[in-house]
Amino acid sequence: MKIAIDAMGGDYAPTEVVKGVELARNEYPDLEFKLFGQIDKIKPLIENEERIELIQSDEIIEMAEEPVKAVMKKKNSSLDMAAQSVKNHEADAFFSAGNTGAILAAGLFIIGRIKGIDRPGLATTLPIVNDPEHDNFVMLDVGANAESKLFNLYQYAFMGKYYAENVRKINNPRIGLLNNGTEADKGDSLHKAANELLSKDNNLNFIGNVESRELLNGAADVVITDGFTGNAALKAIEGTALSLLTLIKGDIMSAGLKSKFGALMLKPTFKKIGKQMDYSQYGGAVLMGTKAPVVKAHGSSKAITIKNTIFQIKSMIDSKTIDNVVSYFDEHSDKMAEIKQNAKNK
Amino acid sequence: MKIAIDAMGGDYAPTEVVKGVELARNEYPDLEFKLFGQIDKIKPLIENEERIELIQSDEIIEMAEEPVKAVMKKKNSSLDMAAQSVKNHEADAFFSAGNTGAILAAGLFIIGRIKGIDRPGLATTLPIVNDPEHDNFVMLDVGANAESKLFNLYQYAFMGKYYAENVRKINNPRIGLLNNGTEADKGDSLHKAANELLSKDNNLNFIGNVESRELLNGAADVVITDGFTGNAALKAIEGTALSLLTLIKGDIMSAGLKSKFGALMLKPTFKKIGKQMDYSQYGGAVLMGTKAPVVKAHGSSKAITIKNTIFQIKSMIDSKTIDNVVSYFDEHSDKMAEIKQNAKNK
Repeated sequence: MKIAIDAMGGDYAPTEVVKGVELARNEYPDLEFKLFGQIDKIKPLIENEERIELIQSDEIIEMAEEPVKAVMKKKNSSLDMAAQSVKNHEADAFFSAGNTGAILAAGLFIIGRIKGIDRPGLATTLPIVNDPEHDNFVMLDVGANAESKLFNLYQYAFMGKYYAENVRKINNPRIGLLNNGTEADKGDSLHKAANELLSKDNNLNFIGNVESRELLNGAADVVITDGFTGNAALKAIEGTALSLLTLIKGDIMSAGLKSKFGALMLKPTFKKIGKQMDYSQYGGAVLMGTKAPVVKAHGSSKAITIKNTIFQIKSMIDSKTIDNVVSYFDEHSDKMAEIKQNAKNK
Repeated sequence: MKIAIDAMGGDYAPTEVVKGVELARNEYPDLEFKLFGQIDKIKPLIENEERIELIQSDEIIEMAEEPVKAVMKKKNSSLDMAAQSVKNHEADAFFSAGNTGAILAAGLFIIGRIKGIDRPGLATTLPIVNDPEHDNFVMLDVGANAESKLFNLYQYAFMGKYYAENVRKINNPRIGLLNNGTEADKGDSLHKAANELLSKDNNLNFIGNVESRELLNGAADVVITDGFTGNAALKAIEGTALSLLTLIKGDIMSAGLKSKFGALMLKPTFKKIGKQMDYSQYGGAVLMGTKAPVVKAHGSSKAITIKNTIFQIKSMIDSKTIDNVVSYFDEHSDKMAEIKQNAKNK
């Protein structure tokens, strides 16, 4: 299987991207890579070109560029060309650590949506702590769509289900709806209607509403959310974890010797927790609903995260995640059309 | 000044409520209290009835009751009667640690909205960490309204401004809009329009969009949000902080002696951080936009939190927060009407 890589995307591109690709190549003998970027910059970084094809792209989409415009205009950018190679079936999946909006736009407009899917949703995997039975959960949409309608929330549930089953290997995942309270009648009209619609579907193990307070405690295996709220909840989780750890570190550093000694003794604990909270171990965020895997790693990703993300892509391809989603939406196209019709204007 | 207290609301009522009231009474000589509840249960708990009037109420609104129905039906509940006494000008403010929905309903339907305010919003104060220049911020609405319209967001900004100025003593508070990105054109149509509307108002020190990742880092002094997103962000912050601290504690307890010894040495650090993160130090959540202070403490509040919340209410009364809000909306009623008209259906 072949992965198309935007070698110029990310804060540490192309160095860390190339390093990550080589780590993955060394570990997974069935993977091949198409690296898009400025060959004069990439070539000197590569130790060994085995299973790595270099393709020249003259342009770069910068992190701060207006995404849709950039994707439409810079056809010769590494990001566009990588997506284009997936569209042309020259590669099986797309990867970038670059401009998030541009990755989403390339996924939507170059690679394209799966038939029957209204809006692809961005799925991220987060750790579950304090629950020995569950290790992580999948949340979508975390920001592909600022405005999600009822039918979109409904479809996210199926995309999340397949992702959790195939990639996270969670059998019959518990699907929850992010809402303002656990009771079925909580929330605004959109979320009330979503609760009703999801609970009626026998193909989903829908467990009802979940609150953002309980996400890290394992409230659900798949958390369905509109992209606006999901984005706010995800960033609140990230921000709080970072702020707390910074606070602890800062206080220890400014405190006396006793505290520093204590911190030294607690180092394994902090290391373990840092590792547990670091959700880049699960790879990047996946745009679910496109015709091939479109995966985005954090802009600040180093080689090890790039490698983890490539493993995640490999898992998606190995488990035929996209094929399974395609089949479900194909087989249930009548049901989808009916529900879409009923959900209109909701 | 006189505060009407629902003595039967909260997980530890009436014991901790009574204790908290006595702590506050001992500290603030200008405060008087009307305690509503079951006198046979309350009387034995009171050490000294100075400035505390007991009023019998036969009913209790339970934590799990359907709020609006309960408020409408249980006219003789401690919660309803306390609100009623504020409505009748027998007390200056309302306090309860009971059923949140019922408190909001009593605020809206018994005490009533300030003229010109469309929807009161629930305001909470959260700590700012890692920023030596700022100590805390006010966020509203955190859940009074599951559905907020453009005009509501706009009005929250003024209520938040007065609360931050008068109670938190923040001069010309920086007002931010919780959104999916910092750029002005981010978000759904509601938040795009809100950014535009807020940035045009010269009476507000509007600093633009803020992301939930930066809230605890001091992104703004007042964070304006629709109640649905605000609720999700608040609960994500709470949940993450709790999960992380539980994780650290759990790991230390299950680890060897070395770790426990380290934890002992770090105790002052953890204590300091626990204190810094504990936002009950700022009192409870305030329903801004009603004719008198309506303040809700967390259901699990103990005496010290009740006392802090009473101090918060005293600050609201001392600083004439409500009067200031009333005056602003009164003086700007033409502007409000015009903006409401323009904002219709947004």
